[in-house]
Amino acid sequence: MSSEQDLGITESKQHNTGEWYAEVVIKAGLANYGPDGMSGFIVTRPRGYALWEAIQQELDSKFKATGVQNAYFPMFIPESYLEREKDIVEGFDPEVAWVTHGGHDELEERLAVRPTSESIIAPYMAQWVRSHRDLPLRVNQWCSVVRWEATETKPFFRTKEFLWQEGHTAHETHDEAWDETMTRLDQYAELYEDLLAIPVLKGQKPDHDKFPGAHKTTTVEALMPDGKSVQAGTSHHLGTSFAEAFDITFSDEDEETQPAHTTSWGLSWRALGALIMTHSDDQGLVLPPTIAPEQVVVVPIWQEDTKDDVLDYADEVADDLADSGVRVELDDRDERNPGFKFNEWELKGVPVRIEIGPHEVEDDEVTIVHRPDGESITADRDDIGETIQEHFDEVYAKLYAAAEENLDDSVREADSREEILGTLGQHGGYVKAPWCGDEECEEPIKEPLAAEIVMCPFDDEETVGDDETCAICGDDATQTAYFAKNY
Amino acid sequence: MSSEQDLGITESKQHNTGEWYAEVVIKAGLANYGPDGMSGFIVTRPRGYALWEAIQQELDSKFKATGVQNAYFPMFIPESYLEREKDIVEGFDPEVAWVTHGGHDELEERLAVRPTSESIIAPYMAQWVRSHRDLPLRVNQWCSVVRWEATETKPFFRTKEFLWQEGHTAHETHDEAWDETMTRLDQYAELYEDLLAIPVLKGQKPDHDKFPGAHKTTTVEALMPDGKSVQAGTSHHLGTSFAEAFDITFSDEDEETQPAHTTSWGLSWRALGALIMTHSDDQGLVLPPTIAPEQVVVVPIWQEDTKDDVLDYADEVADDLADSGVRVELDDRDERNPGFKFNEWELKGVPVRIEIGPHEVEDDEVTIVHRPDGESITADRDDIGETIQEHFDEVYAKLYAAAEENLDDSVREADSREEILGTLGQHGGYVKAPWCGDEECEEPIKEPLAAEIVMCPFDDEETVGDDETCAICGDDATQTAYFAKNY
Repeated sequence: MSSEQDLGITESKQHNTGEWYAEVVIKAGLANYGPDGMSGFIVTRPRGYALWEAIQQELDSKFKATGVQNAYFPMFIPESYLEREKDIVEGFDPEVAWVTHGGHDELEERLAVRPTSESIIAPYMAQWVRSHRDLPLRVNQWCSVVRWEATETKPFFRTKEFLWQEGHTAHETHDEAWDETMTRLDQYAELYEDLLAIPVLKGQKPDHDKFPGAHKTTTVEALMPDGKSVQAGTSHHLGTSFAEAFDITFSDEDEETQPAHTTSWGLSWRALGALIMTHSDDQGLVLPPTIAPEQVVVVPIWQEDTKDDVLDYADEVADDLADSGVRVELDDRDERNPGFKFNEWELKGVPVRIEIGPHEVEDDEVTIVHRPDGESITADRDDIGETIQEHFDEVYAKLYAAAEENLDDSVREADSREEILGTLGQHGGYVKAPWCGDEECEEPIKEPLAAEIVMCPFDDEETVGDDETCAICGDDATQTAYFAKNY
Repeated sequence: MSSEQDLGITESKQHNTGEWYAEVVIKAGLANYGPDGMSGFIVTRPRGYALWEAIQQELDSKFKATGVQNAYFPMFIPESYLEREKDIVEGFDPEVAWVTHGGHDELEERLAVRPTSESIIAPYMAQWVRSHRDLPLRVNQWCSVVRWEATETKPFFRTKEFLWQEGHTAHETHDEAWDETMTRLDQYAELYEDLLAIPVLKGQKPDHDKFPGAHKTTTVEALMPDGKSVQAGTSHHLGTSFAEAFDITFSDEDEETQPAHTTSWGLSWRALGALIMTHSDDQGLVLPPTIAPEQVVVVPIWQEDTKDDVLDYADEVADDLADSGVRVELDDRDERNPGFKFNEWELKGVPVRIEIGPHEVEDDEVTIVHRPDGESITADRDDIGETIQEHFDEVYAKLYAAAEENLDDSVREADSREEILGTLGQHGGYVKAPWCGDEECEEPIKEPLAAEIVMCPFDDEETVGDDETCAICGDDATQTAYFAKNY
């Protein structure tokens, strides 16, 4: 236990969200900043990595249950490959880290450390796909990628190297590729809503903010407590542009050669950032029981004359919980008092605490305390394994409800530039407004506020009436745009 | 199904082991070679990656059960960090890929793509370790590393980028670090013996072949069918050299500052190479049932008049197997005949085939065929889920026994340079000889045969008698050396 963890959180979530976030990440032992000379990189410590492993496990099983197989492609991409899809090279060129030397020799062609792998996966798909019987083809890889962005480091949200998964698929038809795009987007939304206790909005990016070369980019957006939106996962319908650049063709049932329709989709450890920022508080990390490495900490509270009885009882309770599959920690350290232990486990994000003192022993009970709000409940010691599951559900529901309330309260409407700017400036959150679809109408919002159109809902035909006009230029509106500041 | 897979293996395991191996890897769909301009890189296809995932899962659960937590460190290491442990920089300098540019800018300090991570993990351990209560500290990461070796690509055995795990630990005492070193070596040996059906030899590397900076390097060595040894996993006792270079110190119980004793240990996808090469044959891939993605293929054999009955029955058998947890594939394709299917599944390494024709339906039986030797057994259809587990055990035992016999037959003794050279030249395998410990006495073997001392058994005190002399120079022998050609 290093001494830094004893200090507690000093920043305020409400007043200095950025500093508070960084403090929680460091003091809860989730990550450290990279070494000198490597700003933008972080070290993910075991407590942080365990959360990423839980996300991986959940997503990976969803993928495998729906026809995806994992694979691994080289981490380097020859420059000439990146250039084969011109939008890709334009989209990523300024952000790429370049390997120029191997050992003592300069390379003939420099190699990009992958910023994303379409350009190296597509040529292999072209080899593997011959006939319509080879389709659909679905591969995914878990890996790290590098994007050399010169911005301030924000652990998990913005780092030069980040961990993610990238899925790549090929299909016979445009519609099948669309179904795939949406299947993955839905799985991302489920991950947030069912594992991370974060409600999300689903929609599509405006055309000018699509993935380079894509037909359509879809996104799940999560609202952070400071009113900014996080792009929490994206799924791209790539049309036939990569298939044409890299020759991914198949012979259809009539033996005609056709280009495949491809997709790609990715979710990064930014999900971890959203998790930490959404639920945590001024006492430290808050985690839903679904993902917490320790779901329960049992803290015995004794005087010398009750010590043996209390410790025995606490030990039994912890054993029962472990036997019923709960991830439980018994904190029976002699050298620390209960108050210190409460603070420390709160800092570390354990969602449920069980307190056991002489009264609990006498009455055959336990005292259960919920992390997010400190609610304290006395419960029978019998069937503690079942009882605790109900408390996990309650804690999860509380976290989800708070995030949902924040989201519901933060979607506002506006129908003029002034109103959009005023509302965003005052409240943050999302401001929805009818929009003509032209990038130029984003500028008058982006310029003064650094807010942008983070997504447009899928059901525009319903939401945009025939007589509605763009809130900026007054021309016919074709979409509803959600303006927000974002990470 | 791409057409290349229909062709079958044309090379001979016995006569052209290298070409045969490459053909099995490609035709069984495990990997492809990297793109033009990236020789030394491979693409790991889903069938290959699934094997790596099985190895990961097995090792990862062993690690976690013995106090190891996963973490993730940056993939780049500043040049100045590599240089802080002088042996490290000398050991890896010629093999490092260098990132010199981020976007359009040249970096102030170039960054090595990690060839191994001691140099970037050690400074963080130094931050995390303060007191003896912080020890032992054990972290592991699953990642890819790059070593720019200019040799011919051999998928999984020799590639410029490879997947592996690297564990890094810190301890209070020299002996605890030694226990850790051996715990991991034993886990590697168990992985080979219990999951991959490959017996291994455990020992230590000669001093001149230790990991740069290590106090001692231990190794598991596996004998390949061509008589060459594979370094199948290594575990290093690093002494205090990294602790001293990177300031990993702790205050002991008497509040005295002490350097930590560290270890590192790694196992790469070379394990996959050993697996493929050991068991496979001229029909293609052979896998033990422990790791095969499909453990059983059910092949129905019908004429038009028996088709419905046979297919229904085959379907039920496959369902029963799946229900009992077997990874089973029913191959009911209409367009392929049974012979074609047999060949294809043999190429792909399915360890057990179940054939079902009208006779089996009539007699309520199944015909079970083992992949390694074609042994065919008729069994009751009832309790097929239990029966098949016995066959898995038998198949595993056959594979293990064949590998063990090869190993047992391939350890020979010699006590002169001529005898070592003659025996190695004629038989390959291992030649054990008493050795003085001097690197110069390896040269007369290395020079003409490219064979070297791959390991020395741990129990030298028993094996080297007082009166034994070095087989090369005639001085007193201190160790038993195992000479072998290696991968």
